[in-house]
Amino acid sequence: FRSKLPRVGTTIFTKMSRLAEEHQAINLAQGFPEFDCAPELQKLVGKYIARGKNQYAPMAGVMALREAIAKKVFAATAKEYHPETEITITSGATEALYVALSTVVHPGDEVIVFEPAYDSYVPCIELNGGIPVFVTLHPQYEGIDWQDVRSKISPRTKAVIINTPHNPTGNVWKLSDLHQLADIAGQHDLMVISDEVYEHIIFDGREHISAASIPALAERTFLCGSFGKTFHTTGWKLGYCLAPKELTAEFRKIHQFLVFSVVTPIQFAIAEYLENPEHYLTLSAFYQRKRDLFVHAIQDIGFGLRPSEGSFFQNVSYENLTGENDRELAERLTIEAGVASIPVSVFYDQITNYQTLRFCFAKNDDTLLRAAELLSKVV
Amino acid sequence: FRSKLPRVGTTIFTKMSRLAEEHQAINLAQGFPEFDCAPELQKLVGKYIARGKNQYAPMAGVMALREAIAKKVFAATAKEYHPETEITITSGATEALYVALSTVVHPGDEVIVFEPAYDSYVPCIELNGGIPVFVTLHPQYEGIDWQDVRSKISPRTKAVIINTPHNPTGNVWKLSDLHQLADIAGQHDLMVISDEVYEHIIFDGREHISAASIPALAERTFLCGSFGKTFHTTGWKLGYCLAPKELTAEFRKIHQFLVFSVVTPIQFAIAEYLENPEHYLTLSAFYQRKRDLFVHAIQDIGFGLRPSEGSFFQNVSYENLTGENDRELAERLTIEAGVASIPVSVFYDQITNYQTLRFCFAKNDDTLLRAAELLSKVV
Ligand SMILES: CSCCC(=O)C(=O)O
Ligand SMILES: CSCCC(=O)C(=O)O
Repeated sequence: FRSKLPRVGTTIFTKMSRLAEEHQAINLAQGFPEFDCAPELQKLVGKYIARGKNQYAPMAGVMALREAIAKKVFAATAKEYHPETEITITSGATEALYVALSTVVHPGDEVIVFEPAYDSYVPCIELNGGIPVFVTLHPQYEGIDWQDVRSKISPRTKAVIINTPHNPTGNVWKLSDLHQLADIAGQHDLMVISDEVYEHIIFDGREHISAASIPALAERTFLCGSFGKTFHTTGWKLGYCLAPKELTAEFRKIHQFLVFSVVTPIQFAIAEYLENPEHYLTLSAFYQRKRDLFVHAIQDIGFGLRPSEGSFFQNVSYENLTGENDRELAERLTIEAGVASIPVSVFYDQITNYQTLRFCFAKNDDTLLRAAELLSKVV
Repeated sequence: FRSKLPRVGTTIFTKMSRLAEEHQAINLAQGFPEFDCAPELQKLVGKYIARGKNQYAPMAGVMALREAIAKKVFAATAKEYHPETEITITSGATEALYVALSTVVHPGDEVIVFEPAYDSYVPCIELNGGIPVFVTLHPQYEGIDWQDVRSKISPRTKAVIINTPHNPTGNVWKLSDLHQLADIAGQHDLMVISDEVYEHIIFDGREHISAASIPALAERTFLCGSFGKTFHTTGWKLGYCLAPKELTAEFRKIHQFLVFSVVTPIQFAIAEYLENPEHYLTLSAFYQRKRDLFVHAIQDIGFGLRPSEGSFFQNVSYENLTGENDRELAERLTIEAGVASIPVSVFYDQITNYQTLRFCFAKNDDTLLRAAELLSKVV
């Protein structure tokens, strides 16, 4: 049997979550909240199920939800997306990213990928016969080297995939970065896929700058978002893709044969829940407090703390503490300390020892404090 | 912009459902039930949401659901599928079919497709660079011409996709058909994708024969099923794929980057609901009564009635009544009679006028009676 993805094994998230379970370790590896979503939101799903919203949603999504997203994005970016022709509801941002890349990438096309990169990007490109071309961000991350990006563009470059706030690093793109990208994309007629699932988790007074807010970018961007991180509902698999009409038409051709439509009662529930912007505008403060609590609790361990500007991840380096590579250390800490993390080198194509671990702080305070204590005993 | 699916427009289901809405017509086009799912099942979803089952499910699916499916399939076919390595929960059978075809089809590979064919098969093949090779079933369907099938096999043939009970015709495969397929597939080392979403809707004492029940087939089959049709929950998007370990491993590599996982509380709810087999074993009788009621109500219109052996579709021919092609007639009946149907020629590659309409009888009795009356006035 000839594999379509010969280089791919089980994702690191599944692997580490399993190992954590085996050793009854605290799971700061896979990124999902330990706490539940709001009871009010839970009741809304029940309400729409009881109302009989249990058959196929429209292929592009429930109109009330598309309208609510349009309104929310307009408030944040002043960019108008038309619900009828420019917004599609997807089975999580994962599906949105897959379909956007499928829409754009033909065999032989190149896609610029900044690494470390979320682990689905490269397989999505390769499943479509595309070739990922990596721009490597340095361990001591000091912004994007745009000269490097330009040097990677070839006549076969078709698209660039970006992610802000960034998983795994927690870095956030600046306005100047987006302008640089808009310049390059315009000059070389590139499509942009923008993964903004952590848009509402951003710290220290920063503001999320969406690709939608820059017209020269928006006109060539598939903006992929989701509600899993925003509403603590990673298991509800509700995402979306915003793109100009012509791009959306092509996106939907693929979406309709991939999943056809997305869970109906959940679409209605989220649409209603979005009516109150407080439901998402308070999230940054909520997570900033958790970040600070966790950082404070681990400060004496001797980790190097990388800045977490957004997302719910804290990266730490450890080169002064041990010579192990990060896969080894992540495994050992899961088994010996009882705390699971993600070795950041898995997010690179070539670098196999980035000597950095990613901890997810979307956990209850006492879980974070206990994890810090357990870590301090072993490291 | 170079389209990945240049020949594809909006699906016929979206098109006809829209037209039906515009003209406030009774929608016997898109296949979904008019009635709601069981209140008991609705409550189960609420229960698991309230219990906090709202974060990512395991990538392959909630174990309780995989075990329930294994048990159900074993009871029907005596074939053991191992939940850990051979069962994957998907976002409806639509995703299962897409992923199965993606797993198997490399650029240039040929796939045997029986037409009329459900509209997602061909785009799924083409998105993977594959080539559909059609075996055309004749309007006066009298079984599969296996000589014809054999003549279509080439050194590039990689797979065969089958569907029983069949959408749109309502035909059901016989044991001899499955044995023929097993022979050919074994001889030419072909993979089989078997779409069995109507497995529990089968009439007049027939039994559904699953590809799983024939060992020589099961060992090379991706069996795709779903709960949407079985539990009147087409909007919950819960499906699955059963396949031997090695095939499942490759299937999951793609599934994990397509949607990663499927809505968690719904998986738990369906797992519990499956504990009582009556919840699905009574479905055939339920729909047979509806089929008979509908057939009786339209018998004086002058349609030719094709046998509906399973599924919730009744096909009718009309060549004695009007010279219109079936797309024209389906549109006219939606507008003038107020009853939407699906023109069966859309399920063919070349035949553009099959002169047959497909009516979905998954509707309330009075809806079916009213539709018959409206049709009789116009036809
Ligand atoms: C889809 S499972 C991975 C969750 C996540 O986004 C992460 O941990 O990075
Ligand atoms: C996914 S919408 C189509 C529903 C269906 O299976 C049909 O009408 O044939």
